[in-house]
Amino acid sequence: LHDLAAVCEAIRSLRVRGAPLLGLVGAAGMALAVSTTGVTIRSLEEAALTLKATRPTAVDLGRAVDSALAAAAAVPEEQRVSLLWDRAEAMLAAQAAVDNALARNGAEVLQGLAPGPVLTHCNTGALATGALGTAFAVIAEGHRREFVTACFATETRPLLQGARLTAWELRKAGVPATLLPDTAAASLIASGQLSAVITGADRIAANGDTANKVGTYGLAAVAARHGVPFFVAAPMTTVDLGCPSGAAIPIEFRATGEVGGFAGQRWAPDGLDAYNPAFDVTPADLIAAIITERGVATAPFEESLRQFAATPRR
Amino acid sequence: LHDLAAVCEAIRSLRVRGAPLLGLVGAAGMALAVSTTGVTIRSLEEAALTLKATRPTAVDLGRAVDSALAAAAAVPEEQRVSLLWDRAEAMLAAQAAVDNALARNGAEVLQGLAPGPVLTHCNTGALATGALGTAFAVIAEGHRREFVTACFATETRPLLQGARLTAWELRKAGVPATLLPDTAAASLIASGQLSAVITGADRIAANGDTANKVGTYGLAAVAARHGVPFFVAAPMTTVDLGCPSGAAIPIEFRATGEVGGFAGQRWAPDGLDAYNPAFDVTPADLIAAIITERGVATAPFEESLRQFAATPRR
Repeated sequence: LHDLAAVCEAIRSLRVRGAPLLGLVGAAGMALAVSTTGVTIRSLEEAALTLKATRPTAVDLGRAVDSALAAAAAVPEEQRVSLLWDRAEAMLAAQAAVDNALARNGAEVLQGLAPGPVLTHCNTGALATGALGTAFAVIAEGHRREFVTACFATETRPLLQGARLTAWELRKAGVPATLLPDTAAASLIASGQLSAVITGADRIAANGDTANKVGTYGLAAVAARHGVPFFVAAPMTTVDLGCPSGAAIPIEFRATGEVGGFAGQRWAPDGLDAYNPAFDVTPADLIAAIITERGVATAPFEESLRQFAATPRR
Repeated sequence: LHDLAAVCEAIRSLRVRGAPLLGLVGAAGMALAVSTTGVTIRSLEEAALTLKATRPTAVDLGRAVDSALAAAAAVPEEQRVSLLWDRAEAMLAAQAAVDNALARNGAEVLQGLAPGPVLTHCNTGALATGALGTAFAVIAEGHRREFVTACFATETRPLLQGARLTAWELRKAGVPATLLPDTAAASLIASGQLSAVITGADRIAANGDTANKVGTYGLAAVAARHGVPFFVAAPMTTVDLGCPSGAAIPIEFRATGEVGGFAGQRWAPDGLDAYNPAFDVTPADLIAAIITERGVATAPFEESLRQFAATPRR
């Protein structure tokens, strides 16, 4: 992406998505703007508005753009190009450090299990965080250490992130990959061949209840029936200690048109009503451990999560 | 469908599918053959081979075709046209009687619950049985009697029978319908708005363990966690008393190409391995009742199912 317009198009068309990655793209977008369209605050303010308008509800994007703008305003014009590029690169390095720590912590958890294949849902790799990813990074690191022999990936309807993104990333990482319809996950878990189920998280309440891509709760519920450990791998930015439990997490409902079709192809009759929540909530009692970059939380989760949150960053 | 070639094309292209409907189409196909291509046994044998070759593993199709051929061979040539048409119509009437009894029995079960919406999976209506359907007939009858206020239908990946067929049939039957991705079923069940989950069955073991379209087991497991009753509605032909439990039911695995795409559209990288079982097994302890045309079986299922099987047909 060589200019601001290309960055905005990539965000709008969802060619870049995932909260941490959108933050990185916001920071890099501001750096591109200062390099290509001008160093004045007026020009940067315009770039910031343009970038934020691409996805107004993306918190990480807005935060990264605003913070770049404020930082640029605090220094003379001639320092702004190098400052914004340095900030974007530092942000990527920080994300890589988080993902690395998370991967190491997760691999240690998997090391305690019998080696075998794992099941994951949605996309949590580089295409989501810009660095190694979250659950994906744990799986890749587990495979490198030979505790994860293979990875099953759900298609992840309705937006098919598993089929489109995770399958591609697994192959790229050299992890033997098998795709399955979301409907086949329960029988796969029941078949007894998995050593674990591991997913990311969109928001983790203080008690450990976890909102993640819709479909996660069903996987966790079936895993519990079969004694297959269910792990959540997510950075501490996902932990919301102000939110006491899953019941307090608002669930976004998305356009009905995403159901009954994909990318212009329609399978269902037109005009049908659809139930299309973006997330579901997995109750803490179904979660064997929450893997973060600061450590691995087990029940009672609140204690560990508060302790991790209080740990000063190194 | 006005000739044998059209019937064969409809079967091969899956425009007609569903075990009972394929039986009816086999019987009607033989009647069309005797009317349009000739009354000799040689000609009917050829028609039978052609029909059976369209889907060699469809038991109901093969059985109906062979039985029509044997019946035709037992009478003089001039009686064959009316005999085969009468047999096909009698078969449809028998199917309608089964579906009607099943619908009435099921509606009585639903009458015992608080009125509300139900969730179903895959397709179990006229497009599956040729008459009223199984689980679908129960839902439609429950709606007519005002105990079923609406029906949620899963998309049912990978072949999307819910999105393509059930959604259309619900609208046609005047039942308020909402489509959902398979991934959203668990959160819908957890939301507390359903009065029941109800599906069909492909094969029911003597102990009540039930093989049905892949994805059914996950629905039943989550329904059990939330105290939502899970019902199976299926004709007695589905009950296999020679099969002691679900462990003895063979599960068909289908082509990997069905996963990661649909109808020529591909979402996943090429050449990826896929886990694609056609069915899964729901253990009997998750099933509140098995609704048949002969009565409603509850735990211990084997006793009731053997009793229903021993009941002479009226």
